[in-house]
Amino acid sequence: MLNVGIIGASGYAGEELIDILLGHPQVRITELSAKIEEPCLISEMFPKFKGRLDLVCNQPYLKRTIKNCDLVFLALPHTVSMEMVPYLLKAGKRVIDLSADYRLKEIKTYEKFYQTKHSDKKNLWYSVYGLPELNRAKIKGAKLIANPGCYPTCAILALAPLVALGLVDCDSIIIDAKSGVSGAGRKLSEGLMFVEANEDFRAYKVNIHQHMPEINQELSGLHGKPVKVTFVPHLLPLNRGILETIYVKKSAKNKKTGTDFGAVFKKFYHKEPFVRIRGQGDLPRIKDVAGTNFCDIAIQDSGDSLIIIAVIDNLIKGASGQAVQNMNIMCKFPEAMGLL
Amino acid sequence: MLNVGIIGASGYAGEELIDILLGHPQVRITELSAKIEEPCLISEMFPKFKGRLDLVCNQPYLKRTIKNCDLVFLALPHTVSMEMVPYLLKAGKRVIDLSADYRLKEIKTYEKFYQTKHSDKKNLWYSVYGLPELNRAKIKGAKLIANPGCYPTCAILALAPLVALGLVDCDSIIIDAKSGVSGAGRKLSEGLMFVEANEDFRAYKVNIHQHMPEINQELSGLHGKPVKVTFVPHLLPLNRGILETIYVKKSAKNKKTGTDFGAVFKKFYHKEPFVRIRGQGDLPRIKDVAGTNFCDIAIQDSGDSLIIIAVIDNLIKGASGQAVQNMNIMCKFPEAMGLL
Amino acid sequence: MLNVGIIGASGYAGEELIDILLGHPQVRITELSAKIEEPCLISEMFPKFKGRLDLVCNQPYLKRTIKNCDLVFLALPHTVSMEMVPYLLKAGKRVIDLSADYRLKEIKTYEKFYQTKHSDKKNLWYSVYGLPELNRAKIKGAKLIANPGCYPTCAILALAPLVALGLVDCDSIIIDAKSGVSGAGRKLSEGLMFVEANEDFRAYKVNIHQHMPEINQELSGLHGKPVKVTFVPHLLPLNRGILETIYVKKSAKNKKTGTDFGAVFKKFYHKEPFVRIRGQGDLPRIKDVAGTNFCDIAIQDSGDSLIIIAVIDNLIKGASGQAVQNMNIMCKFPEAMGLL
Amino acid sequence: MLNVGIIGASGYAGEELIDILLGHPQVRITELSAKIEEPCLISEMFPKFKGRLDLVCNQPYLKRTIKNCDLVFLALPHTVSMEMVPYLLKAGKRVIDLSADYRLKEIKTYEKFYQTKHSDKKNLWYSVYGLPELNRAKIKGAKLIANPGCYPTCAILALAPLVALGLVDCDSIIIDAKSGVSGAGRKLSEGLMFVEANEDFRAYKVNIHQHMPEINQELSGLHGKPVKVTFVPHLLPLNRGILETIYVKKSAKNKKTGTDFGAVFKKFYHKEPFVRIRGQGDLPRIKDVAGTNFCDIAIQDSGDSLIIIAVIDNLIKGASGQAVQNMNIMCKFPEAMGLL
Repeated sequence: MLNVGIIGASGYAGEELIDILLGHPQVRITELSAKIEEPCLISEMFPKFKGRLDLVCNQPYLKRTIKNCDLVFLALPHTVSMEMVPYLLKAGKRVIDLSADYRLKEIKTYEKFYQTKHSDKKNLWYSVYGLPELNRAKIKGAKLIANPGCYPTCAILALAPLVALGLVDCDSIIIDAKSGVSGAGRKLSEGLMFVEANEDFRAYKVNIHQHMPEINQELSGLHGKPVKVTFVPHLLPLNRGILETIYVKKSAKNKKTGTDFGAVFKKFYHKEPFVRIRGQGDLPRIKDVAGTNFCDIAIQDSGDSLIIIAVIDNLIKGASGQAVQNMNIMCKFPEAMGLL
Repeated sequence: MLNVGIIGASGYAGEELIDILLGHPQVRITELSAKIEEPCLISEMFPKFKGRLDLVCNQPYLKRTIKNCDLVFLALPHTVSMEMVPYLLKAGKRVIDLSADYRLKEIKTYEKFYQTKHSDKKNLWYSVYGLPELNRAKIKGAKLIANPGCYPTCAILALAPLVALGLVDCDSIIIDAKSGVSGAGRKLSEGLMFVEANEDFRAYKVNIHQHMPEINQELSGLHGKPVKVTFVPHLLPLNRGILETIYVKKSAKNKKTGTDFGAVFKKFYHKEPFVRIRGQGDLPRIKDVAGTNFCDIAIQDSGDSLIIIAVIDNLIKGASGQAVQNMNIMCKFPEAMGLL
Repeated sequence: MLNVGIIGASGYAGEELIDILLGHPQVRITELSAKIEEPCLISEMFPKFKGRLDLVCNQPYLKRTIKNCDLVFLALPHTVSMEMVPYLLKAGKRVIDLSADYRLKEIKTYEKFYQTKHSDKKNLWYSVYGLPELNRAKIKGAKLIANPGCYPTCAILALAPLVALGLVDCDSIIIDAKSGVSGAGRKLSEGLMFVEANEDFRAYKVNIHQHMPEINQELSGLHGKPVKVTFVPHLLPLNRGILETIYVKKSAKNKKTGTDFGAVFKKFYHKEPFVRIRGQGDLPRIKDVAGTNFCDIAIQDSGDSLIIIAVIDNLIKGASGQAVQNMNIMCKFPEAMGLL
Repeated sequence: MLNVGIIGASGYAGEELIDILLGHPQVRITELSAKIEEPCLISEMFPKFKGRLDLVCNQPYLKRTIKNCDLVFLALPHTVSMEMVPYLLKAGKRVIDLSADYRLKEIKTYEKFYQTKHSDKKNLWYSVYGLPELNRAKIKGAKLIANPGCYPTCAILALAPLVALGLVDCDSIIIDAKSGVSGAGRKLSEGLMFVEANEDFRAYKVNIHQHMPEINQELSGLHGKPVKVTFVPHLLPLNRGILETIYVKKSAKNKKTGTDFGAVFKKFYHKEPFVRIRGQGDLPRIKDVAGTNFCDIAIQDSGDSLIIIAVIDNLIKGASGQAVQNMNIMCKFPEAMGLL
């Protein structure tokens, strides 16, 4: 049994991690902490865990965490993670960080989009971007995983085959993204109050969202040249789920070839346990993946351009489920263990 | 034209008041204020008013309000109202207070349920409980209206005929009340965040809600003796509307008489513009009254007991619409003006 | 491995059963059928099962079902179940019927509330009402389980200790019940369209709902004398979950004893894996049990009366989860297997 | 007073029309009909109209309608309208048709997208596309108005200044549209049931929606050459409102000019009572226009391309409100009468 801890257990990602890990046969949760006023049973904080987990959630204290855990999940706001990671790594612990602190390899970009200094450049260098479908080999040996953001997970999986194989014009990518409200985290905010978000729908952070450089970075890696996407996120009046509608032009070399894009995607992902390519005219909806670790993708050929529709559960494949998938890979458990 | 002001324009009741008053042919909104960091156009705060009202919302300043207005609506949290009312009345202004500060005639009850001292006992004495269906005559000559709470408006209208006519056992009243989230006001609270309230339903403040003594007070007045109801409020995952399911035993004298309760209600309310008594088996739902100033009531005879189902829009008949109805009565405008 | 089949796989209960059984380590789903126009993969009907279950859903045909299965779940509309049960039992199959056909022991009551003749009185006699908390011993040896209705599961668990121990006046029980929309099943109906049910809340079938006699029957059994409850169901604008607020007077013998009702409930249910008694002032909400097989109950002492608040997930503890719990008991699997 | 009738009063657009017309000071509703089983009071069909309108809704019968009305609104499914229009026009009535029957000037396109023959080519020729912001002069003298579709109203208003002034590359228009569920009309459909649409979001009819040729037709008219947009509609889990996110490249001549697009829009629409251009960084949301006849538009300059975000209430500016606006123009009432 692997002893794991969660720092940041009080947020949505932390709560979801507990829920998933309680069903994982090779894991024991030995440590929970969060920035709370005083320690309490996790089942007091989340009554749904009553009778399932009798563990105290403490205030963060790294020495205790280091003593109790083999592997640590950080489900923390950005900047808080990078204060803790160096100590955990130094103590020999494996770390899966669900924050943004170790995702962007260019410090300047991080500092611009997160409006703060980066304090741990050394470990940033060693961190592995934890998208198993693209980085499985590196994840196996990693000490520090930067667990991808929710929007980027969906966007990168939807575009990777096209970009990697040079099938599209990478200057033309438009991502119209829609997310449920849990994507914003459990923080008080007037715009996220029930009466504000219910019966409403809105765009926000048009082309300035902090997940945009993350998408750009990973697609650039696949493309071999800088990629800059247009990225417009929207807030859906529902709890969980992301749907992205992606518009992209075919590359010049590809326009006349009659490529079967569905087949390209199926081949690219044919061994993946959590990517499902939908058939012609079979559009994925949020309901198909809510509560699961799947990413469902449909590709619609539209003459000179393609329309790709992809869905994930933002809290699972977009956060905690993917974190557990990374743990499974790092620990040589079956990759889907606890996730189906 | 009557010049009116709203202090507390930034809350849900204030916003709704503006919306209603903009359609009122005898009223001009001349003053808006709220506890905000700096003055701004009301159409910046609520973009839906763009092109409909170009008025600055200021920070509260009573001298200015007194200069600009004939009548003032206070859409403020409790305790804040009673600090302002004495000055407004002294300056000869008519005041309609949507807070709870002038509703409870017994100071002790107020201080117990609102956990604060009452600082304006004098004007409390003169205030009129602004439920037009029961107090129309007093409202006509009032200087200070205590606009009723949302739950009490619905409960009292649903029970008044039965209690006033001695048709039920007043010791047996059970009110199972359900309200949309706007009932809690526009204040930040974790339990009212979208992800918390959406796809959830819960009871709260069982038998300790501050609207219970208000219901007790008004029913006691009708009964001539103290009435104590059982009152359990619940939070519905929707924006606006209240439905109350009320259980009550018939009074001893009434059990065998074959009273037609629907007829009793229709007679009791036959001149009322905003109370609609539904026929046998025709149950009102929130959708029937949302966006209106109506209260719809159905009475189901169930042998020795009655089940009454009543609905209102908590922000209109339960707050701002009723406030305008009171204004119409005070100012001798047609009672339904601006409300149909 | 137990081979199980589901007849009625296309409804909400059938869909939920598949989801639960896919995570059950001792079960293999070998047969799915439903009243559909032509056979299709279950993953075409419900894309969320893609990659998890590659099984054709056929039209019902009992010979095939009998050949393929050891145990059969019937997730069918009432009247359809009782046409199939005799054949399945005759072939030696164990049957768990999620419809209402075998719940009511009095034929007359069934025929009155379901407006149809009962065609299988013989097996009705042998059926066991599948509420494990009260009937575990009988369930162990049963061939035919009448899986309880959703409202009754919640109501009976909330009242059983009080009625069984004579602590309350059984003539005074009022059940104000609220259910999410999936409780109505996957049938087309104008009142259940999104635009109708969203932002609405309504009572329906006041004191005439078909689950009322089921509650009466089981409470009467516990009481030893006929019990008639007042039962008012309401429709909540959410997908899944039931909350019932129950009002009951203490029995004469009990009024002055200072009974600790929370303790009574905890003792009554202390070995139960799926009943959680909440502490003083800790009110359960639908979110606490949604997606689980738990029933959470709070008891509020209110002088001469009690207010009990109970919640379940209508599709799990109120239908498919309880069906699997019954299967586990019948097949001597650990009772919570596949349900935690 | 103008005597108006509504044929198709039982649908969402019909219901909304009644609601708006009841507040219109120059109009009397003299006739309501719908395809119903037997005549009933409109307040029985929609209890919200109790006490506001005591009129029978009959089955359609044109002679009666012709006798009772000066102007007739048709809120009917397509194909039904074109059976009635010839008779109404022949009798000298003015007609505002909310269906699609008279919107598409090319018969072939109509017959392709609506899968039916067009039976009234003559009147199609004379019909006026009722978008007041572009066609006000023609509407004034029109006998037959083709009231625009909901998606097209929003899209055309959002693009008209750019296309009319040649500021964008008309081959590059991508419209990512999201609509609330009432957009689908009040028809039974499994995908529109509460449990299906709630907590879900999905794309549908990608590039094959029947509103796409309507958008193409009107933009082509403005452009002077054929325009073909990419159009992807999505279904939002809310009752009313449309938000469209539109991506378009600047035209060659325009790329380097530093055009202030907000100013362009403000000038283009400066006399319009129902179009509001938002300032830099001030993004419109559905809540800003729900319940109103406004269309709010924001333009975001993004280098070589523009992102336009526009919102309307699909039942008001996208249907019944616009129909009343057209009536006001035709009848020389103030254009905003009854709509503010």
